[in-house]
Amino acid sequence: MNPLREGLQRQRVPEPCAMVIFGASGDLAHRKLIPAIYSLAHEGSLPPYFALVAVAVSDFTTESFREDMKKAVQEFSRHRPVNEAVWNNLAAGIHYIKGDFKEDSTFQQLGVLLKKIDVERGTKGNRLFYLSTNPSLFEIIPAQLKANGLTSGVGWRRIVIEKPFGRDLATAQKLNAHLQAIFGESEIYRIDHYLGKETVQNILVLRFANGLFEPIWRNQFIDHVQITVAETLGVGSRAGYYEEAGAVRDMMQNHMMQLLALIAMETPISLKAEQIRNEKVKVLQALRPILAKDVKSSTVRGQYSRGYMDGAPVKGYREETNVSPKSVTETFSCVKLFIDSWRWSGVPFYLRHGKRLAKKGTEISIFFKRSPDILFNAADSETPVDQNVLTIRVQPDEGVSLRMEAKVPEQQLQIQSVKMDFRFGGSSPEAYERLLLDTMIGDATLFIRHDEAEQSWAFFDPILAAWREDGGRPLPQYAAGTWGPKEAEQLLTNEARKWRRL
Amino acid sequence: MNPLREGLQRQRVPEPCAMVIFGASGDLAHRKLIPAIYSLAHEGSLPPYFALVAVAVSDFTTESFREDMKKAVQEFSRHRPVNEAVWNNLAAGIHYIKGDFKEDSTFQQLGVLLKKIDVERGTKGNRLFYLSTNPSLFEIIPAQLKANGLTSGVGWRRIVIEKPFGRDLATAQKLNAHLQAIFGESEIYRIDHYLGKETVQNILVLRFANGLFEPIWRNQFIDHVQITVAETLGVGSRAGYYEEAGAVRDMMQNHMMQLLALIAMETPISLKAEQIRNEKVKVLQALRPILAKDVKSSTVRGQYSRGYMDGAPVKGYREETNVSPKSVTETFSCVKLFIDSWRWSGVPFYLRHGKRLAKKGTEISIFFKRSPDILFNAADSETPVDQNVLTIRVQPDEGVSLRMEAKVPEQQLQIQSVKMDFRFGGSSPEAYERLLLDTMIGDATLFIRHDEAEQSWAFFDPILAAWREDGGRPLPQYAAGTWGPKEAEQLLTNEARKWRRL
Repeated sequence: MNPLREGLQRQRVPEPCAMVIFGASGDLAHRKLIPAIYSLAHEGSLPPYFALVAVAVSDFTTESFREDMKKAVQEFSRHRPVNEAVWNNLAAGIHYIKGDFKEDSTFQQLGVLLKKIDVERGTKGNRLFYLSTNPSLFEIIPAQLKANGLTSGVGWRRIVIEKPFGRDLATAQKLNAHLQAIFGESEIYRIDHYLGKETVQNILVLRFANGLFEPIWRNQFIDHVQITVAETLGVGSRAGYYEEAGAVRDMMQNHMMQLLALIAMETPISLKAEQIRNEKVKVLQALRPILAKDVKSSTVRGQYSRGYMDGAPVKGYREETNVSPKSVTETFSCVKLFIDSWRWSGVPFYLRHGKRLAKKGTEISIFFKRSPDILFNAADSETPVDQNVLTIRVQPDEGVSLRMEAKVPEQQLQIQSVKMDFRFGGSSPEAYERLLLDTMIGDATLFIRHDEAEQSWAFFDPILAAWREDGGRPLPQYAAGTWGPKEAEQLLTNEARKWRRL
Repeated sequence: MNPLREGLQRQRVPEPCAMVIFGASGDLAHRKLIPAIYSLAHEGSLPPYFALVAVAVSDFTTESFREDMKKAVQEFSRHRPVNEAVWNNLAAGIHYIKGDFKEDSTFQQLGVLLKKIDVERGTKGNRLFYLSTNPSLFEIIPAQLKANGLTSGVGWRRIVIEKPFGRDLATAQKLNAHLQAIFGESEIYRIDHYLGKETVQNILVLRFANGLFEPIWRNQFIDHVQITVAETLGVGSRAGYYEEAGAVRDMMQNHMMQLLALIAMETPISLKAEQIRNEKVKVLQALRPILAKDVKSSTVRGQYSRGYMDGAPVKGYREETNVSPKSVTETFSCVKLFIDSWRWSGVPFYLRHGKRLAKKGTEISIFFKRSPDILFNAADSETPVDQNVLTIRVQPDEGVSLRMEAKVPEQQLQIQSVKMDFRFGGSSPEAYERLLLDTMIGDATLFIRHDEAEQSWAFFDPILAAWREDGGRPLPQYAAGTWGPKEAEQLLTNEARKWRRL
């Protein structure tokens, strides 16, 4: 058993703190944050001195908010039924402030309450601000915190913000500059719940605890890499958001770039947050820009049309509620990119993401170079020997598999592909449990640094611009329940490659 | 699906021939050869024109021999119950000659019969001579064949001999010289039934059809290699033979050296028999000699003493029937050796074989170098990250497994070893079916060339000599049902390594 971090104590103990959730009456708090906090309490992982202040515009009192949150926990927690003693202890530290985020009075009231809590709950002046709000408030709330004296004083301050971190390079830079004028970068936790899954650590362990992989993790041995995030769901009730976002902003610019960076990064000199983030950002810095003239040949976008999911007919994207019948928002995107480093020179990375695809799953597949056509790939052989493929399944059913070639046990020598497989099994904590705990401990390993977000936007900006210039022309359509537009298949078949079926 | 051999026809069709088994009334013919021939007939793999002549000293007639062999097939064939039509067709071509191998008349009679068979069965003068006799006849029978004109004439001649191919370098050279004075080397098939198992081809496919392995199959990435052939049986009824042989002669000098050569050989330029054998012999030529003074530190021998197998008490070796109570024949041996090639410089190979060990199994384990002690092997970690191990199970339950390090799915980052596994499954043909068919086709890939046998003896001669010089001193004892003498464990623990438990 080995700790991930240098000098890590076996039991990571978070510091006393008061957590403030802005937008606490919203869906995220209800479904994820409060149940995660309860789970941490249930497991004894919360700081010994802890309080939670919910701030929102909805009509709750502290009492009614506590009741509502208890229901949320009952519905969404991993630990059910709810343990009354644990809940009561936690609930006693929950307070609700109804207020407008634009009014100073809201923050004045918050300041008074937090001081009172420091005395009553022993939270020592440490404050964790969590922005679970519409992105339009990402600048206002920090400004209000500062204006009302909540960013200074005894103890630490940390702020957690949810994606999107801007909608292009310029807005991301503006947001970062704004946040950094108020908080130090080390106090800013940009959360990507995908990274709270076991993924990051699994990839780090797979790559760096196994002597076998690192030597062949480079262009001499790897033919190409595929990263797929496939969803079966459509846009659902999120059309308002999604129409403005699309597949690239929703998933590719953030989650998938993080997966890419973890897979492609150089070996860090330690597992400290800054070292890992330094290596990740180098990958993003080394992305070869896709020029306007190359966008067509290096990317594909698409939109789902009517089709069938699990045998039932489903609507096309343009027919969904709150979606424009002339929408040109992409629900599918795929990108072929190169990393201009010695390690990855000449190795294409293919990223693909879409809604309403045939199967749900996130996975990364490393396609190793075929053995040379000397012994087994004679020109006259009927089926060539296949490539070895190492697949890291991020979800569902986290695991690793290796496709290899083996002899069919028969008189004749015939070869076929077989699979060695390993499933992680066990029950992973919810992503938000892990991430909230990290913010209380002050471990930023799994959070996105400003330059990571900006570098990623720098890569996607020209692509999004080229797409925009295409104007209102309809996107390639793909029937719901398929693997995306035929252009996506074509992108790989043009290069004698093929998307891996999940 | 890919043929192993260049220009291989999908269906390998053996040529018409008459097979002559010398010593046909013995155990091997009864249990293995005749049942294998029947299986080949059953599957339609025998040559369309085929006959079998059995020669032995026992009192059979052609009729009674056919009956006896039918019983053998009924008892030992994979294809039961016996198909009467198939058997009758095969049996019609079986003839028995009773005769002394030292008498010319025996061979004269054989010559006449074979000519008659050529006419009756269309065997075209092709003869496959199979020496299933005591090794003392390995020189006499070929000499008699020549003296009586059976080695010339129309058609091809091939001779199959069973191990032992000598009992040291001098006797092996003498035997080879004798055989080569009568037959061309390409007509001599030294059979090692271990190689008839799927093993050889599985190893070739694993190593050379997988792009992943060949680049790391060398000293930069491999820490050491272990080859284990573990038996649970004792000496049984073979004490007469075994007392003269011992573990090295019985298993290590032949089978295990072949496994070693297959694992360690350079990539051949084709899969033709001669190319593969050229590469194998190079490995044996590159074995670093173990000098007399180093025998003690590089080898271990042992003898099983009383112990328990499956809960029942069993005898010690010196108590077995026909074993001298002062026997110094080793029933266990292990050897640490080096291959002085660029690929294997500095990589120890540990070979171990014994009878009455705790578990039956043959496997080859490649221990890769540990990942560097930078990220996960901090000095203060409680358990170091383990090595990756690729294990090729030869028997039972043929397959491949890869031990790798993975994260335990928990809040904390803990690492443990997990196993990806693949079993070949399916039903492999019996080793002798495969090998007999190869002799009829003229494919020597799975047979041992004279120089392979000799090189292997050249390596073991000094070891056997040093052991002999030790005189009659008792060998290290190990209780039946254990993993051999403690000296064998020590050999590896001295180097901070450990035998893999099967």
